[in-house]
Amino acid sequence: LLSKLPDVGTSIFSVMTQLAQETGAINLAQGFPDYDPPRELLEALARQVLTPGHQQYAPMPGLPRLREAIAAKTARLYGYLPDPATDITVTSGATEALYAVLAAVVRPQEEVLILEPAYDLYGPAVRLQGGVPVYVPLSPPTFRPDWDRVAAALTPRTRLLMINSPHNPTGAILTPADLDTLAALLRNTDTLLLSDEVYEHMVFDGARHASVLSHPELRERAFVLSSFGKTYHATGWKVGYCVAPPALSAELRRVHQFLTFSVSTPTQHALADVLPLAGLYETLPAFYQQKRDLFRELLAPTAFRLLPVQGGYFQVADFSALAPGVSDEDFARQLTRETGVAVVPLSAFYHNRHDHHLVRFCFAKQEATLRAAAERLAGLG
Amino acid sequence: LLSKLPDVGTSIFSVMTQLAQETGAINLAQGFPDYDPPRELLEALARQVLTPGHQQYAPMPGLPRLREAIAAKTARLYGYLPDPATDITVTSGATEALYAVLAAVVRPQEEVLILEPAYDLYGPAVRLQGGVPVYVPLSPPTFRPDWDRVAAALTPRTRLLMINSPHNPTGAILTPADLDTLAALLRNTDTLLLSDEVYEHMVFDGARHASVLSHPELRERAFVLSSFGKTYHATGWKVGYCVAPPALSAELRRVHQFLTFSVSTPTQHALADVLPLAGLYETLPAFYQQKRDLFRELLAPTAFRLLPVQGGYFQVADFSALAPGVSDEDFARQLTRETGVAVVPLSAFYHNRHDHHLVRFCFAKQEATLRAAAERLAGLG
Ligand SMILES: CSCCC(=O)C(=O)O
Ligand SMILES: CSCCC(=O)C(=O)O
Repeated sequence: LLSKLPDVGTSIFSVMTQLAQETGAINLAQGFPDYDPPRELLEALARQVLTPGHQQYAPMPGLPRLREAIAAKTARLYGYLPDPATDITVTSGATEALYAVLAAVVRPQEEVLILEPAYDLYGPAVRLQGGVPVYVPLSPPTFRPDWDRVAAALTPRTRLLMINSPHNPTGAILTPADLDTLAALLRNTDTLLLSDEVYEHMVFDGARHASVLSHPELRERAFVLSSFGKTYHATGWKVGYCVAPPALSAELRRVHQFLTFSVSTPTQHALADVLPLAGLYETLPAFYQQKRDLFRELLAPTAFRLLPVQGGYFQVADFSALAPGVSDEDFARQLTRETGVAVVPLSAFYHNRHDHHLVRFCFAKQEATLRAAAERLAGLG
Repeated sequence: LLSKLPDVGTSIFSVMTQLAQETGAINLAQGFPDYDPPRELLEALARQVLTPGHQQYAPMPGLPRLREAIAAKTARLYGYLPDPATDITVTSGATEALYAVLAAVVRPQEEVLILEPAYDLYGPAVRLQGGVPVYVPLSPPTFRPDWDRVAAALTPRTRLLMINSPHNPTGAILTPADLDTLAALLRNTDTLLLSDEVYEHMVFDGARHASVLSHPELRERAFVLSSFGKTYHATGWKVGYCVAPPALSAELRRVHQFLTFSVSTPTQHALADVLPLAGLYETLPAFYQQKRDLFRELLAPTAFRLLPVQGGYFQVADFSALAPGVSDEDFARQLTRETGVAVVPLSAFYHNRHDHHLVRFCFAKQEATLRAAAERLAGLG
């Protein structure tokens, strides 16, 4: 059987998690918290599971009460009230939303602009639609988009531009000015926008998340994705959603109905129960900023050079002073096997495996975990 | 925005469920039970949700303990022990498995044989891969495959044949002899097999489910799908799985990791807790046969002509004596609006909307629901 993705192996996140488990390393590789969701949410799900009549198919676009709660949250945070009936679709994680958007709008030979480094599924998911990923580099150390390069890469065949803020893996964020620039760029084109905002609640140093949903011009052509897994420390629950104008949502739903049809009914009810509790997400910036600051402080004495982190839950670090000439893949494996700390090499986020001598740490971990990891890393010099 | 599926509307199941809700009709349209999952399963999930450490990403192919339980069940029922490490992948319902198989193996211009009537997603999901659905009719009243017609439709471009037993919507089942015939047909071809066996536990009148997994030759080229939603009256939980040889599973997983990545961790734990309780599924044939028999008995005095049902949870009926000349779509809407019983017109299962004057009733309902529906239907004459 000839593979349709011959060059794609198992996702780096699975590979590093498995290596961590085999070697007993502390897993700072795959992005997930080592703490549980808020009590309110756990109890809501335990209750919903025992609620008669809540165990059969949810409506295909999502439970109405969850979509209404999402609309209300969007209005509260971004000053824009989407219509729950036509604009919001609940998906099996932001991952499904992303894949479904691509399957719904990208045709063979159409181009999709991806800013690199990028989450590992963007490129292969485009290629599975017959689309052509076109990569525009983000340059270290800030990894901010160079909009002139984006403009230069836009062609009449560009069906979609994918952006991600806060950015995985680099922690860079887009500003309102970026969104204005982008709006001007896309004006008078047919290019759609996919905005991956799964880390929307993790923005630091007093900055605010510049959601595409807060931008009246951009949101008219955008699919905006978020993830309850990230917001509620429940990555294993696999619920996300997409907000998009009616015509775009209709195309997304055409595919979503065949991809998964619907999402766990009791889980959607539980999320609808807690989404109005704004305190649960309003406390996230401070919660994660503290983790970022602690982790940076703990690593300050090491020879890792820490790149700036404005949002998300990852810290990127340059290891060239520690292991000159070693590839980031080899370094990540060594660090996992010999130092006992699993990380992700940044080359995994480049289609051509470009090596910047960078690795990514996930700091969405308990203080004790971060301290234990730092102790091991301190031994490196 | 030009649609990639311009002729595809909202899934008939959503449309009829919504119409039922709007009109207060008894919903015998969409296939789902109106009773809850077994207590053991509900309690297992409530427990797993409150188990610390069970709320983050499951391994991409599924929780090892759930895959082991699936392997053991497969060995028990079909005399074949798949390797949980390489052969079993847990998905967001059988729907995701189906879509992922198609995305993983079907290339543009390749043909996929579909026996019609067929579940409404088969054709569009093939087309989204650039594949060409080739339809082979199943003929009423038995709706058994005519293997000569299947053989005639096979070409060197046939990448995949899709079969479904027990069959939705017709309730026909394949026999071991069918599998032998099919094996001979596919021998010396490169055509793969997708076997949708989500109703595997609902086979009546002493017959046994002829799983492709019980067939050593066929299973070498097959993706075999099942659904915990159907088995445990938990259609809203959205967990299914695929059993396939290592090389096929590897391709499926390449796509699954980008489609949804993984499936609800606490839900997988709960399913792993109850899957060894064989009594929960061994009682299903009798449980559903009783519903089938009751429903047929209740409808016997009406002018509906009931087609035979060997498995699954649907009853197909010819309404031409009741409403001569009326299309099945119009009849289904009338029945919903005026008689208060929602059904699915069988033309929804034909790519060309072929009308055989048939509608489908779901009998996976409480006795009281079936009796109430029959009372309304009795008024028809
Ligand atoms: C779906 S596993 C990957 C989790 C994640 O978002 C990351 O590690 O970047
Ligand atoms: C996913 S909704 C459809 C449920 C079903 O299997 C059917 O009604 O045929």
